Amino acid sequence: MDPASSAGLPQGDHRAPSGSSAAARAPGVRAASPALLSINTATVRAQWTMPQIVDALQRHGIRGIAPWRDQVARDGLMDTARRIRDAQLDVTCYCRGGMFTATDPAGLRAARDDNRRAVDEALALGARCLVLVVGGLPKDSRGAPASKDLAGARGMVRDGIGALLDYARPAGMPLAIEPLHPMFAAERACVNTLAQANDLCDELAPGDGPALGVVVDVYHVWWDPCLEREIARAGAAQRLLDYHICDWLVPTTDMLNDRGMMGDGVIELPRIRGWMEAAGYRGAHEVEIFSERWWKVPGDDVLATCKARHAAA
Amino acid sequence: MDPASSAGLPQGDHRAPSGSSAAARAPGVRAASPALLSINTATVRAQWTMPQIVDALQRHGIRGIAPWRDQVARDGLMDTARRIRDAQLDVTCYCRGGMFTATDPAGLRAARDDNRRAVDEALALGARCLVLVVGGLPKDSRGAPASKDLAGARGMVRDGIGALLDYARPAGMPLAIEPLHPMFAAERACVNTLAQANDLCDELAPGDGPALGVVVDVYHVWWDPCLEREIARAGAAQRLLDYHICDWLVPTTDMLNDRGMMGDGVIELPRIRGWMEAAGYRGAHEVEIFSERWWKVPGDDVLATCKARHAAA
Repeated sequence: MDPASSAGLPQGDHRAPSGSSAAARAPGVRAASPALLSINTATVRAQWTMPQIVDALQRHGIRGIAPWRDQVARDGLMDTARRIRDAQLDVTCYCRGGMFTATDPAGLRAARDDNRRAVDEALALGARCLVLVVGGLPKDSRGAPASKDLAGARGMVRDGIGALLDYARPAGMPLAIEPLHPMFAAERACVNTLAQANDLCDELAPGDGPALGVVVDVYHVWWDPCLEREIARAGAAQRLLDYHICDWLVPTTDMLNDRGMMGDGVIELPRIRGWMEAAGYRGAHEVEIFSERWWKVPGDDVLATCKARHAAA
Repeated sequence: MDPASSAGLPQGDHRAPSGSSAAARAPGVRAASPALLSINTATVRAQWTMPQIVDALQRHGIRGIAPWRDQVARDGLMDTARRIRDAQLDVTCYCRGGMFTATDPAGLRAARDDNRRAVDEALALGARCLVLVVGGLPKDSRGAPASKDLAGARGMVRDGIGALLDYARPAGMPLAIEPLHPMFAAERACVNTLAQANDLCDELAPGDGPALGVVVDVYHVWWDPCLEREIARAGAAQRLLDYHICDWLVPTTDMLNDRGMMGDGVIELPRIRGWMEAAGYRGAHEVEIFSERWWKVPGDDVLATCKARHAAA
């Protein structure tokens, strides 16, 4: 069975060759353990509700799930938490808190309150961590940038994470800063490298790795010449809280919703996983794919493809 | 006169507010000197031939030009060189050499030969430096990525620059490495931060700043949390060879050809210029805008807008 063709995915002329064979040859890196596969619910958000996703993961023998807040809210937090518990799924993270930047004190307070609710929800779901997408430049009421002060935005992010940590740490919910690709610096997250996230952790929670850490999402960091070093640094400080996988397509036709399935792009996934493992990471490999293409594929085919591709990723 | 409206540029709903007023308030940074304005010929490539561009720059009193190879080739190297000399324009850089990565020795040799020709052309034009866009992952004959080995590509780039330096240094043509935005890592350039470019300079030409340096293009590096530090580092080593300006639009609708006019996006141009000046840079401010929108605007309106916006950039 060829999961890609069974899924009916169009094979573009200019896509990179499948990474499966290259991946299998990666020196010193074993096949990924199927037990570590987790599915971020955004990957099948267009196809299924939360109850359907939970059922589908059981059907496919996948043991990890990473729910998004809006999807959880649609079907109810307590109902979702019960379904996940009954299915004995591992909640590898909860997506997401963050968006700490704002133009005024009222906006900052609203962000603080919303983040505390996200921590409460993550606790109710039994999530291993709450992912933080920290926010970009402050926005006006229409969603347009209201400031160009990138350094100021980064200061708000530092303060916001620091304040949330005071709430999340005693509650026992680890916070995981997710550096986003630099192309999202203005609109989504002004933490754009793993080094920057590690610096924030060192500043805000020195010596307290499990309380504040990072998510390594290959889509955002694969290009970084310092990636291996910064993964090792995060690992040494016990800060590697989650690992997200997908692929970078060539060409990428949409900055937000054209992420690739593992093997369809140019990211050396086995190499990066090797760096994670060398840094002591033993957690989940969470598939998070925002893709107008994959959202059109039947959910069962998406999951079958995720399983097949994960083995070589 | 409002240069933007005279140019008939559509004003999108979600574009950032004009930066002119904010720019004027930037502390400790004076207005940009009109004498330093240079126009990269890509900015008006859809409107004009090289002779027309040279004439237009004289008409507008703009003293700097940065030609692209394909535009020069269309009208002839020697003819272009003569026109530029007669117009007494300052050739602030020549675009571009690079593309050092290839799948086989023949491809590497072809790149080497082509880069030597680019050095020769830059000398004929009297350019201050040859810009290097170093290339991404090696491509197959159809232009698709033929490898995922990013570290290997970076090694080819290092070797390629080193070899070209042996040719360019005795000829007296400085090479300027241009780090490109990480979103171009696969397709155009696997040097993606100024730190990485500085590291290459230190490795290949220690203590020889003028022979090998960097181009700081705000579009590619504005997001970098280490930007101020790395500009200072390059300046201290006499490696700041050129400065490119434009703006990052929100939203950006096309990764390649949706760059903004200064003031229409979110880049704090006066702040970055201040870092350049503090690092000792006294060279040109070169406007390089790849934009399907601006390519539809009459060239004289584009240049008038560049002049007006440059004053506050």
